[in-house]
Order: sequence, then structure tokens, then C-alpha cells
Amino acid sequence: MTQQKLLLLSTGGTIASVISEEGLAPGESGEDLLKMVGNLPYQIDVKDILNLDSSNIQPEEWKTIAEDIYKYRHDYDGIVVSHGTDTMAYTASMMTFMLQNIDVPVVFTGSQVPINVLLSDAPDNMRLAFAAAASLQPGIYLAFDSKVMRGCRAVKVRTTAFNAFESVNFPPVAEVTSDGLEIKIPEQWQPRQCILNTAIDTNVSLIKLFPGFDPALLHAMAENGCHGIVIEAYGLGGMTFIRRNVAAAIGELIRKGIPVIAASQCLYERSDLTKYEVGRQALLEGAISARDMTSESAITKLMWGLGQGMDVKDIDKFFNTNVAGEVTIDELN
Amino acid sequence: MTQQKLLLLSTGGTIASVISEEGLAPGESGEDLLKMVGNLPYQIDVKDILNLDSSNIQPEEWKTIAEDIYKYRHDYDGIVVSHGTDTMAYTASMMTFMLQNIDVPVVFTGSQVPINVLLSDAPDNMRLAFAAAASLQPGIYLAFDSKVMRGCRAVKVRTTAFNAFESVNFPPVAEVTSDGLEIKIPEQWQPRQCILNTAIDTNVSLIKLFPGFDPALLHAMAENGCHGIVIEAYGLGGMTFIRRNVAAAIGELIRKGIPVIAASQCLYERSDLTKYEVGRQALLEGAISARDMTSESAITKLMWGLGQGMDVKDIDKFFNTNVAGEVTIDELN
Repeated sequence: MTQQKLLLLSTGGTIASVISEEGLAPGESGEDLLKMVGNLPYQIDVKDILNLDSSNIQPEEWKTIAEDIYKYRHDYDGIVVSHGTDTMAYTASMMTFMLQNIDVPVVFTGSQVPINVLLSDAPDNMRLAFAAAASLQPGIYLAFDSKVMRGCRAVKVRTTAFNAFESVNFPPVAEVTSDGLEIKIPEQWQPRQCILNTAIDTNVSLIKLFPGFDPALLHAMAENGCHGIVIEAYGLGGMTFIRRNVAAAIGELIRKGIPVIAASQCLYERSDLTKYEVGRQALLEGAISARDMTSESAITKLMWGLGQGMDVKDIDKFFNTNVAGEVTIDELN
Repeated sequence: MTQQKLLLLSTGGTIASVISEEGLAPGESGEDLLKMVGNLPYQIDVKDILNLDSSNIQPEEWKTIAEDIYKYRHDYDGIVVSHGTDTMAYTASMMTFMLQNIDVPVVFTGSQVPINVLLSDAPDNMRLAFAAAASLQPGIYLAFDSKVMRGCRAVKVRTTAFNAFESVNFPPVAEVTSDGLEIKIPEQWQPRQCILNTAIDTNVSLIKLFPGFDPALLHAMAENGCHGIVIEAYGLGGMTFIRRNVAAAIGELIRKGIPVIAASQCLYERSDLTKYEVGRQALLEGAISARDMTSESAITKLMWGLGQGMDVKDIDKFFNTNVAGEVTIDELN
């Protein structure tokens, strides 16, 4: 059997960090990473495309990463992207939209401890990511701490522990067991034309509702060039409507052509604006439900939709569409 | 043995909700709640102080709740506050600051399903809350799904499941076992003068960093009368500083006298701005670390501190002080 051919795109992150005067900062190359992982039963090429702490990975870098994945994908059986953990869920979510119908497995990974530290989680995560890139169906994944999850369902929930990521509102698609990588959710991949489309509008904001929140801030954002807003509302998506009428402010924004997405500040489970009066008020005003999406997926989906020139009605329809497993669409909501 | 005397302050919420044309909305009184719980081995008085979905509980209601707790506390062995789940963690956090050195147990509770539904979680939660109010040391607590946690450590993490709340970065102080309410963390309560202080400044905001976030929005907030900001930064508290220099924008705000608190968008574990360059940049600019506080505690602590007339330096010192168990202070950070 010939060895599978895989590509490592390295972008920096903790996994590649070394100690500097200013604190930990990326330093190791992709080749360095591979050397420290040890033998892998694949033929692996390496391209260092970025060398950044992921707090500095932004829309410009998303384009670079998407373009490189698109460009090289047919030369390999799968692609691993090493990436800082801080914004990895955002990048993986955005790749879901920028690279629709991706036709190879693309697996993001990183680590909580630099690979040059003896008891780092990096070697395990790298081996897992390569195994996933070699064996899973095409798609955008995130591999961490013995689990492989859909990139668009991943959330970083712990700042230091090795189990940094959780797969939110959808189970991990594969897990390491003593039998190897056990596929839990076989993805129903259908061959379709992979499309690279990196047009996004980054003039959006992501705010979290709290008691006392002044709806005037929503207007201030709109006046400062904000083209769309994701609000992490309460519970199922409830919003204040007495005195500080957040729901009414949303209505005004929507009538000005600014879509407002109602997500939940609860990490787990879906939002459902239909159940309580406090949700229905927002729904009546035109708030668009994020359903069971992560905030990372909601904000990247909004940027991508706006980048395609979608108006409020289009965004509403787009958020009622499951693009690549990022949302569960059912009768409710 | 004489029965303990407890007070139920009812404020509305799902627990008291009934079906209306507009969706579920509060309807039941505190007496109704008690009747549906069944016999309790306490002498219980009831006061209906509010009747709101907790999405509509705001700073004005915080004052009402704090004043009533303060006013009635010496007439009872403990106080239970029934409250909607959506903002219960915010209210419980704020009570921690408005009622420092509270000298009776005050236990918030609510439910995911109205009490008039057969399989509601409300009767269990109510029984737990009364047991906690009758037996715990003085303090502000939140009782839910067989666990009692510090109010200032509670976060609502699930929109529908009964285990809606988690105690973040501090273990639950008590749990139900077959032996009854088992105290896990004996609180080291010291009798001191309880102070009612409801002066707060609600002109704050709570934003979540995402790749592409435009630091100009921070300036826009300041220009729109925002007196303090909590930013949910990445991981340990990292912020973008290339191209979109969030750290520099924070510095400008701080020099204008607007404190900026760096929390983490990761639900669990502490922030530590010292570890990575992306955190140190923010620290150098004067960002104040929220350490291991919840966002709910950070934003209410900020409102309370600003309401006391604290300036940036005072707020910094205040956030480096453990008021009532809401933060772990150690050498780091």
C-alpha cells in the first residue's frame, strides 16, 4: 500500500511558540513541528504560510488560509492546518463558508502547550490531526484532545486545560479509542463542486446582552458603519423590552437594512425565540435566530453572507439554511 | 425544636409562568408556588415583590430586590428568591456587591419548566433552595438541579436542560446526596456589618472579541457615554494588536479614564495576561484582568465600582480584591 500524501500548512500559534522577551510568541516552523512529533506513517509536505499568534489571525489571514487550502487540495489526500487555539474555532468556522463543498479532509489542530515542552499536548494532537486528515470524509474539522469535531461546531471553552475545545450542539465526529480513530458520526459527503469564495464584510459586531444594556449602543454601532450584529441574548434568545427596549431597537436596525442575529449566551443548546414573550417580541421585530449555532459560526456566517451582498431578507434565508452542518434546521423557530 | 422561619421573595420567571397569547409569561404568585411544592418543614412567609420574566429584570429591579433582602433579613433565618433563569446569575452576582457582608443565607432559585407542569424541575429546586436557606452559612447563593453554588460563580450554560447552571472556576458549595444537603465547601463566614449599597453606574458595555473586530467601535462606545467596558478576549485574555490594534485602543480609553476589563470568552478557567505577547500588550496598555471571574460577575462588579465613583486606578485595585468569593487572587496576573 502506498503511503497517503498529506500537507501541513503551518500558521503559528502556541504549538509553535518559543519564549521571547515579550512572552510566548510563535517561532517554530512546520518542519520543526513535524520533527518533534516523530515518525508518522504518511508522506507529508510542509508549507509555512503564516507565523502568528492566533489572536492576530484576522480576515486577511482567513483568505490566505482558504486560498492555500483550495490551491493545494488536489495534490494531497488531506490537509492539516496547525493554528493557535484562541481563534481556531473562528477560522475553522469561516473555512466552512469560504470553502463550501470542500472535497478533501481539512483538519485544524494546535495545542495548549508549545511542542518544544516535554509534556506538551502537541504531539498527540498532531498525530490525531494527521490520522483524521488521512481517514475522514471531506470536510472542515478541528482535532484536539483525542476528539475530532466539525470545525463549525467547535468552541474553545478552557483557557489552559488540554480538553480546550468542545463540540457544541453536535457530537464529535470521531474519537480516539484503543482501536484507533473511531468514527462516531459518518458524514454524508456528496461529491459537489468545491467553491472558493472569500468575499466577506467584516463590519459586524458581536455583543452580549446584560441587564442595563442601553439599546442606544446598537444605534451607535449602526452609525459607526456596522452592517450586521450578532447579539448573544439570554437563554432561548430572550431580550429586554421594558424600559430599555432592545427588541424595538433591533426592529429599527432591521428596517434600516442591518440584520440582527439573536444567539444565546448559554454555551449549550439551541435558541428558540418562539417560546417566551421576551423572545417573540424580538422575533416580531425581525430578529433572526441563530438556532443552535455557535457564536463563532454565527458571526462568520454573517460576515460571509454580507460579503456576498445579501440584504436582510437574504441573510434571514441564509440563516435558515444549513450550509455545512453548522446549524440544525427543524420545524421550530 | 422550633421550625425555622424563612422568607420567599417571588419575582416571576419561568417557574411562575403560565401560557398566554404572547407566549409564556409570569403569572403565579409566591403563594401559588409554595402550594405546588407541597409540605415544607419550615415556617414560610411570602412576599411578591416583582412579576417579571427575568429578561426584563434590570438595574432598577436589582435595587428593589437588594432593598427587600436587606429590610427583611433579620426577621428570618434565611431568604429564598424565586427568579427567572435568564438573568439570575447577573442578579445573584450584583447582590454580592450590593449586599456586602450579608448576614443571612440568601438563595436564588428558579426552574426551566413552569411549576404548574407535572414534570417540572421547580418543586425540586424550591425544596433545595429552602433547605439551603435553612442550613448554609450567610451568603448569596444560587440553587439549581441538586447543586448550591455561590451566586457570583454561577453561569447559565444550557437553554432548556434541567442542569442549566454551572459553578464556574469554583466548586458548588453544597450538593444533594442521599444523606441530604452535603456541604462541600464550608464558607468561612465572619460576622461583619452588612452594608446595603445600591449605587451603580449602568453605562457600561460587554463585548466579545472576534477576528476582524474594529477597535473604532470601542471609541464609538466611549463617545456614546460608555463609562467602562468588559471585553471577552481570547483564551487567557489575548487581543489582536496587528492592523486592528485592540490593545492600543484600550490604552486610549484608559487614558481617557474609561476602565477596560479583559475577561475570557472561554467559559472555564482563568485569564492571565502575562503569559503571551498578545496578552502583555493589553496589560501594558492598562487592561485590567478579570482573572477567573465570570462575565456576569465582571460586568456587575464594574457597574458597582463605577457607581461608587471609582476611577480607573480604583477599579484596578477593586478588581484585584476579592469582595465575596467572586475571584481568586494569587501571585499571577
